[in-house]
Amino acid sequence: MQKTLQQIAVVTLGIADIARSKHFYVDGFAWTPVFENDEIVFYQMNGLVLATWSAAALAADMETSPLARPGACALAHNVRRQEEVEPLMRRLQACGGRLLRKADAPPHGGFRGYVADPDDHAWEIAFNPVWPIADDGSVTFTAPGAT
Amino acid sequence: MQKTLQQIAVVTLGIADIARSKHFYVDGFAWTPVFENDEIVFYQMNGLVLATWSAAALAADMETSPLARPGACALAHNVRRQEEVEPLMRRLQACGGRLLRKADAPPHGGFRGYVADPDDHAWEIAFNPVWPIADDGSVTFTAPGAT
Repeated sequence: MQKTLQQIAVVTLGIADIARSKHFYVDGFAWTPVFENDEIVFYQMNGLVLATWSAAALAADMETSPLARPGACALAHNVRRQEEVEPLMRRLQACGGRLLRKADAPPHGGFRGYVADPDDHAWEIAFNPVWPIADDGSVTFTAPGAT
Repeated sequence: MQKTLQQIAVVTLGIADIARSKHFYVDGFAWTPVFENDEIVFYQMNGLVLATWSAAALAADMETSPLARPGACALAHNVRRQEEVEPLMRRLQACGGRLLRKADAPPHGGFRGYVADPDDHAWEIAFNPVWPIADDGSVTFTAPGAT
């Protein structure tokens, strides 16, 4: 069987109000769009693209119903230092995010909390001391306890 | 304001049955786990990590209800040639995936269809001639019509 590239090219989040969503991502995360128009905003990430797109247009593109909600999922943004977790979570909440879980230490180590974006997409803001972050933001899985 | 790295470290998909999910990702996409145990499987992707994790455990970690479903979203896997789109979609359907949209040409060009994984996470399988794919799978946004 042919090997398929282990690759995610785009994460597309359905949104209801583009200005509200941009406030969260541009002012909360301090990210800069690479392209935007009236219904979609693209952000160039670490080797993939984040798109925030009208949920109705996304549903139409998928030929599914906007009411057919997907399974639970979460995106994680990892920071380099534990002290960055809570300030970023506060900034996201100040920009329309909703606190899901206050930051604390998970069993596997590190420090993390969860904030939902204005369209209920869950973001984990995490300090994970075991997974290296390259200069370009790329993250490499490392098993807990590995050296 | 401090610039935040434009980075997604992990995409975590909530799943109900780990064997059923692995059949889709390991046999359908032909991806190799980098780590697995009884409740979670990690795949190293292009500069980020894909996790498939018990939906109940994910909900507990987020301190939200498993019934509180997130907004609509979709992940995209981009292939290098248009001829790869339909065979991969067929393979995913043979491994527990559900066809959402048959492959056709979107208005912005290229060729794509959608298949939901066994837990209703939507995957777009796309050939996008405009967005380059590096050897490591990294994808770079390029505006339609740009040269």
